[in-house]
Amino acid sequence: MATKITHLTAYDIRFPTSRTLDGSDAMNTAPDYSATYVVLETTGPQGLAGHGLTFTIGRGNEICAAAARLLAPLVVGATLEEIVSDLGAFWRHLTAGDSQLRWIGPEKGAIHLATAAVINALWDLWAKAQGKPVWKLLVDLSPQELVRCLDFSYVTDALTPGEAVAMLERNASTRAEREREMQVLGYPAYTTSAGWLGYSDDKVRRLAREGVAAGWTHFKQKVGADLEADIRRARILREEIGWERKLMMDANQVWNIDQALSSMHLLAEFEPWWIEEPTSPDDILGHAAIRRQIAPIGVATGEQCHNRVMFKQLLQAEAIDFCQVDNARLGGLNEVIVVLLMAAKFGVPVCPHAGGVGLCEYAQHVSLFDYICVSASLKDRVLEYVDHLHEHFVDPVVVRGGRYLPPQNAGYSITMRPETLQRFEFPTGPAWK
Amino acid sequence: MATKITHLTAYDIRFPTSRTLDGSDAMNTAPDYSATYVVLETTGPQGLAGHGLTFTIGRGNEICAAAARLLAPLVVGATLEEIVSDLGAFWRHLTAGDSQLRWIGPEKGAIHLATAAVINALWDLWAKAQGKPVWKLLVDLSPQELVRCLDFSYVTDALTPGEAVAMLERNASTRAEREREMQVLGYPAYTTSAGWLGYSDDKVRRLAREGVAAGWTHFKQKVGADLEADIRRARILREEIGWERKLMMDANQVWNIDQALSSMHLLAEFEPWWIEEPTSPDDILGHAAIRRQIAPIGVATGEQCHNRVMFKQLLQAEAIDFCQVDNARLGGLNEVIVVLLMAAKFGVPVCPHAGGVGLCEYAQHVSLFDYICVSASLKDRVLEYVDHLHEHFVDPVVVRGGRYLPPQNAGYSITMRPETLQRFEFPTGPAWK
Repeated sequence: MATKITHLTAYDIRFPTSRTLDGSDAMNTAPDYSATYVVLETTGPQGLAGHGLTFTIGRGNEICAAAARLLAPLVVGATLEEIVSDLGAFWRHLTAGDSQLRWIGPEKGAIHLATAAVINALWDLWAKAQGKPVWKLLVDLSPQELVRCLDFSYVTDALTPGEAVAMLERNASTRAEREREMQVLGYPAYTTSAGWLGYSDDKVRRLAREGVAAGWTHFKQKVGADLEADIRRARILREEIGWERKLMMDANQVWNIDQALSSMHLLAEFEPWWIEEPTSPDDILGHAAIRRQIAPIGVATGEQCHNRVMFKQLLQAEAIDFCQVDNARLGGLNEVIVVLLMAAKFGVPVCPHAGGVGLCEYAQHVSLFDYICVSASLKDRVLEYVDHLHEHFVDPVVVRGGRYLPPQNAGYSITMRPETLQRFEFPTGPAWK
Repeated sequence: MATKITHLTAYDIRFPTSRTLDGSDAMNTAPDYSATYVVLETTGPQGLAGHGLTFTIGRGNEICAAAARLLAPLVVGATLEEIVSDLGAFWRHLTAGDSQLRWIGPEKGAIHLATAAVINALWDLWAKAQGKPVWKLLVDLSPQELVRCLDFSYVTDALTPGEAVAMLERNASTRAEREREMQVLGYPAYTTSAGWLGYSDDKVRRLAREGVAAGWTHFKQKVGADLEADIRRARILREEIGWERKLMMDANQVWNIDQALSSMHLLAEFEPWWIEEPTSPDDILGHAAIRRQIAPIGVATGEQCHNRVMFKQLLQAEAIDFCQVDNARLGGLNEVIVVLLMAAKFGVPVCPHAGGVGLCEYAQHVSLFDYICVSASLKDRVLEYVDHLHEHFVDPVVVRGGRYLPPQNAGYSITMRPETLQRFEFPTGPAWK
């Protein structure tokens, strides 16, 4: 019995986080964390449905929801079985099959954010149909099956399908051992919760202290709005976390290149492990120039790196030390996996962007798969963790002692609670009245 | 009396061009040329209003129109006088002032396309208020006044405001002489009308012959869907236009890098002047690699190069021989001018992308300004011309003997006829019933 996709519904879900400045940074001063939330209904048993979301920060979320609805004709009517029989081709169909829609990207902006929600809903659907969490579905695919899920257009100069199979085969025989390790120990994480720009110094100190007590070893601080305040907070953080634990900094794109260099020159005394988004996410050569001039401080970026072609160049130009893929900014899991493989080939560790709403839920699957099947290494790899909004998910992340414990339930962990969809739908839900 | 902006209206206007395959190419097989059309109403005399549009190819146009409406709170209520007193700051306000909206770009995709429509409507408004065409408004601004219209964020490593002033000053004393030359001779153009992919060989031959008779010296052919057909058409075109006239080719992004190299190796016998969009518009390093390997064939791109940061890198990486800025893809005229200045500094000629609907109307102002104030050269510069949809404009382009004659009426030449807005509004207009 084929599982036919019968409806695509897109919800505009928003949380009023700007009221507390959770998530505030130098660029994004007052975000309302939001989700374009897509449900793919099917003819499958027990109301089988795929759920996926893309993350935005408020206004504009309705644009992504409308874009997701425009993708419906490319998905509705197809069966899960025919889609997964050649998922790479389906991904290409969704991103380039309707050339009119492609025009308003291409493969970037609202239409690509919408693609992420739809593609990730398909992975959720597939995993639920198989009764496995997404990371386990991936781990159980052979190298050839995995590579058939991918689209290599525009990246064959950096990675061919044949190379990808070979890379996956190299680690295939030892997958089971790393899977067992993850089930016991979990995946290492870092916390951003102490470092939001809108928090007072006292709150930063208190949260840092609590973080140390809870076992965190890596802390991230937002910088870039006010250099004096950045220095003051870095000092507070170092006082609380000491010098053995790692401190990362995140400028959220506010600097020109010369500003990035002068700021990092002053912040270097706090020994940041990386500076994240020091300038425009589009400036590949700019990141490379910054990296050359601030070593040994690393350069990290990726949460707004919009597609595999941009990541390919960040790697080719030796512009980054840490690759921060984002499951909602890239066109869903298929494109994320292409980036994981390229990063492994170029020897750059992947530390996914998370936080927002649902991004931790997504990213745990990515990092587990990356470790078990692709990189086979934990060196210099930590997965972001932010302690917000998890209560809205049916199967929220579980983090203990600074580590993500692998999700066990079927799907992509992204299904929201029905009462959340009802309460936070914008603008009609009770949270917005 | 200040001119206050009182309303922003965005129309979804679509033309059913897919019925005749006008505009068809290897990537965009059946476009319905469309405009997100923005009107800024004001308190000015005689119903003074600014008109601007962004270009799309059909589905998805409603997304851009919705995005333009979301920008309204950033524009409505301001006065023209306060906006133009620091237009560079206003441009920054529109693109980064609402960080929630910025997230769904940033500076790319639907929100940046919408920005183009709004910004260009502001230029139309300013020029109408001054009683001048936009190109003449620009020519009459001093170097300092011009540079105050620009936002240099993320590009100061390539061009500083001071350098921009110096470049403009270098040509300021000879502006009047080039302005007179343009008024008499017009700006050189090339035609794409003969080369659409959906046309039969006979139609290509007939249109090429008519083009030669009409005085055209540069012809562009679409390639990339079928290499044998590309070769057959190139032969037809060379038979009709000879070898002294220039032949350009345009692949509209369908190739990976290796495919671009092998295709151009075979097409080289037809001596193309440039290959346009040989691969992904995001692949800066890929364009550079192709350029190194196919010289003396030039590399051209830009119609989907989404912002100044990408153009900066195309120039820094020596990836292009021709810079094809697009007034609707970049965030309007302010960002276009930043790119013109960077291109001049790097010695790359600007040949704007036009065609679509309204893009010729826009681009003539850009090329006139570029010649009179920035480049002061016509060497290797031709402005695209496509003979479609001009009848919908109140003040359409005038092209004679392969040259654009400078527009004389006030504004940006982009105001559509009221009956067009009524007839082609999607989906309610009579053209769509």
